[in-house]
Amino acid sequence: MSTLRSWFSIPRDSHFSLANIPFGIISTAASPTPRVAVAIGDHAVDLDAFTANNGFQALSIIQPHQTVFSQPSLNAFAALGRPMHTVVRKYIQSVFSADTPYPDVLKNNASLQAQVLVPLEHVTSHLPFKIGDYTDFYAGLHHAYNCGVMFRGSSGAIQPNYKYLPVGYHGRASSIVVSGTPIRRPNGQVLLDPSAEKKIPTFSPCRMLDMELELGAFICKANTQGEPVAIGEAPDSLFGVVLMNDWSARDVQAWEYVPLGPFNSKNFGTTISPWVVLADALEPFKTQGLENDTEILPYLQEKDNKSVYDIQLQVDLKTQSGNTATITKTSARHLLWSFPQMIAHHTITGCNLQSGDLLGSGTISGSTTAQSEMGSLLEQSAGGKKTVKIAGGEERRFLEDGDEVTISGVCGGDEGMLVGFGTCVGKIEPALTLSF
Amino acid sequence: MSTLRSWFSIPRDSHFSLANIPFGIISTAASPTPRVAVAIGDHAVDLDAFTANNGFQALSIIQPHQTVFSQPSLNAFAALGRPMHTVVRKYIQSVFSADTPYPDVLKNNASLQAQVLVPLEHVTSHLPFKIGDYTDFYAGLHHAYNCGVMFRGSSGAIQPNYKYLPVGYHGRASSIVVSGTPIRRPNGQVLLDPSAEKKIPTFSPCRMLDMELELGAFICKANTQGEPVAIGEAPDSLFGVVLMNDWSARDVQAWEYVPLGPFNSKNFGTTISPWVVLADALEPFKTQGLENDTEILPYLQEKDNKSVYDIQLQVDLKTQSGNTATITKTSARHLLWSFPQMIAHHTITGCNLQSGDLLGSGTISGSTTAQSEMGSLLEQSAGGKKTVKIAGGEERRFLEDGDEVTISGVCGGDEGMLVGFGTCVGKIEPALTLSF
Ligand SMILES: [Ca+2]
Ligand SMILES: [Ca+2]
Ligand SMILES: [Mg+2]
Ligand SMILES: [Mg+2]
Ligand code: NI
Repeated sequence: MSTLRSWFSIPRDSHFSLANIPFGIISTAASPTPRVAVAIGDHAVDLDAFTANNGFQALSIIQPHQTVFSQPSLNAFAALGRPMHTVVRKYIQSVFSADTPYPDVLKNNASLQAQVLVPLEHVTSHLPFKIGDYTDFYAGLHHAYNCGVMFRGSSGAIQPNYKYLPVGYHGRASSIVVSGTPIRRPNGQVLLDPSAEKKIPTFSPCRMLDMELELGAFICKANTQGEPVAIGEAPDSLFGVVLMNDWSARDVQAWEYVPLGPFNSKNFGTTISPWVVLADALEPFKTQGLENDTEILPYLQEKDNKSVYDIQLQVDLKTQSGNTATITKTSARHLLWSFPQMIAHHTITGCNLQSGDLLGSGTISGSTTAQSEMGSLLEQSAGGKKTVKIAGGEERRFLEDGDEVTISGVCGGDEGMLVGFGTCVGKIEPALTLSF
Repeated sequence: MSTLRSWFSIPRDSHFSLANIPFGIISTAASPTPRVAVAIGDHAVDLDAFTANNGFQALSIIQPHQTVFSQPSLNAFAALGRPMHTVVRKYIQSVFSADTPYPDVLKNNASLQAQVLVPLEHVTSHLPFKIGDYTDFYAGLHHAYNCGVMFRGSSGAIQPNYKYLPVGYHGRASSIVVSGTPIRRPNGQVLLDPSAEKKIPTFSPCRMLDMELELGAFICKANTQGEPVAIGEAPDSLFGVVLMNDWSARDVQAWEYVPLGPFNSKNFGTTISPWVVLADALEPFKTQGLENDTEILPYLQEKDNKSVYDIQLQVDLKTQSGNTATITKTSARHLLWSFPQMIAHHTITGCNLQSGDLLGSGTISGSTTAQSEMGSLLEQSAGGKKTVKIAGGEERRFLEDGDEVTISGVCGGDEGMLVGFGTCVGKIEPALTLSF
């Protein structure tokens, strides 16, 4: 792709270059009804206002569907299907390009610019989708290994099924929140002495509160219940990707998770970034994931083995006293399974996906040995045995009250051409003191 | 309660006596838009039509909210809260009672009777709620023990956490279907020889397809994220109860479930009965559940230990060739945890419930030894080792194609006063032969 130059001022280090065009849901003080927008540089483009002013005049194919941009979620737009996302994104790129064939739409239309271009600092972002169901996978092999060693020792760290199928579990959809929403430390049952023979739990605020660095993928295409999605068709179901922090209460998890999996340890909140980067925008950054040394079943075999994304991921922690540290740097390519493989597996039984469903990748760790490449504090602290250094002499084993965790992610290195996700932020509030 | 006599003809053996008044969503050939109804005897009462004709004329408190009866789900009605459900149910009972104080509303109004009373045989029932999240618990102690013995032997059958907290997992909301919907046998990964040292899965239609006899409880009250529901308030969150069949692919489950719990083995379909019996209607049938010999934490302690329901449950199986058997008879009182305890535990972390969320009780088995009281074929066949006798010389270890499973449930023994659930039915269709 040649450089996309715009008549509009887009900072060269922006995650939201003309090569990106991520979709989200915004509101503003002047117009508090949530609606669809895209992000370009430091601005949101209000697509509801754009539509109302005939902004899509040169894209007739979208015109019968333009009410999708007035919706308070992306579900209806997503359900139009990937070919429609493609043409809408390309049209917006062409409207903003320096040599736009449609200069009258926006470039030479100062009054429409004033209406539709909103500085991001004046924008409130909302959850991009009404999420019907949320599934969290476990495709980060290094993470699965690191956790497995802690729970079961190195010989049993990776379960026999792990390389044959993308292990996952159904998560809690209602508690998914948009970046910036505070996360309250949960209360729950924990085992203070897991090695005691008689296991008696204590009621306590979580003492091992953790983050998990993940990607989230939104589904755009519904399949009929009873009819699996073939692996070759699975990319058609993929709307786009966000950053995700799957907050985890490790002490609650250790006590509760046998035999039916994590429940309360995961259901108090999951944070996602507000701008959904379309699958189209991520195409140039597809790469090969971790090699699978097993012979996988045909329904999971992809023709193209470049099926994960080389997204540079970073986690920053800021403490209540303002000290900071970059605690993780890695790439999203450290996955054993791709989103199309997750879709094929999820539906092989006939399970029906719907527009707006969210799939989590599982925690992404770049290494089984390098602390600074691990996607959770559980791994970085080796289960609480080691510390993670923060500036100012502070250190962490798990998250403390007032800690703010920021995930960021970006593809590409060419300034002016970045395809990034912005940030996914959450700050820990103290646990409630309950009177019961 | 004295016998409730009606001017309307209600068969004496009906599950839907005047003591019941369950709510559901119906449509008819003449009026295909789904809307709210209650069931009385052999009829549905179309509450949308009843409202439109001023049927609630003597219940002013509901009048500002009457649009809830035109909705295609019960979510909005449920969200009005239990005090409103109470008065609406009582008003409908009084309208139908032999000595109704409002004879002009319906008793003496033949034309309105013709409009609102629809024979159930002409009614199509729909899912009663738009289900945001579905959680399946595991509160049937006998079931947990029976399964535990098979997977881990009798000494480790009940995990250390089991009696301290209601174990549960997040389920798949999108694939919940209403009674009568066919269930297609899923394909998936199974381990043909689980004892082999090298574990290599085979792709196959499920060979161990099972049912699970459960209750489902619908939530009516949303709690704010971060704010737990106190056990004393939890009954206010309980709208009502349905019968539930949590179809389960046991061979898929055995291979996939470590370490994050059941996923594909449960996500292909869950069937519920269409008429939701209000918590109010079940009040007279509250009883003590199974005794818990551990000291549970205060947030799970109930003031009233009569917190489960004595519902007489029955499972019938009809094979493709028409042979039948009643394979299970038990009571819903065989639970270690009540729905209020499940609600308190679910939200103790701050997890937010919403109107329309569904909680499954877990499989209800009345015994650890009597085959005819067990709520799944896995237990009845001892993992496939024994058979279950059907009429005509047929027998079963698991479900075969064409098998139809019918769950029924009823409270009370007084004819004319029954509070029942009707039936929850599903028939197994053959697996798809996939070309990939
Ligand atoms: Ca996770
Ligand atoms: Ca179950
Ligand atoms: Mg979470
Ligand atoms: Mg199910
Ligand atoms: Ni859901």
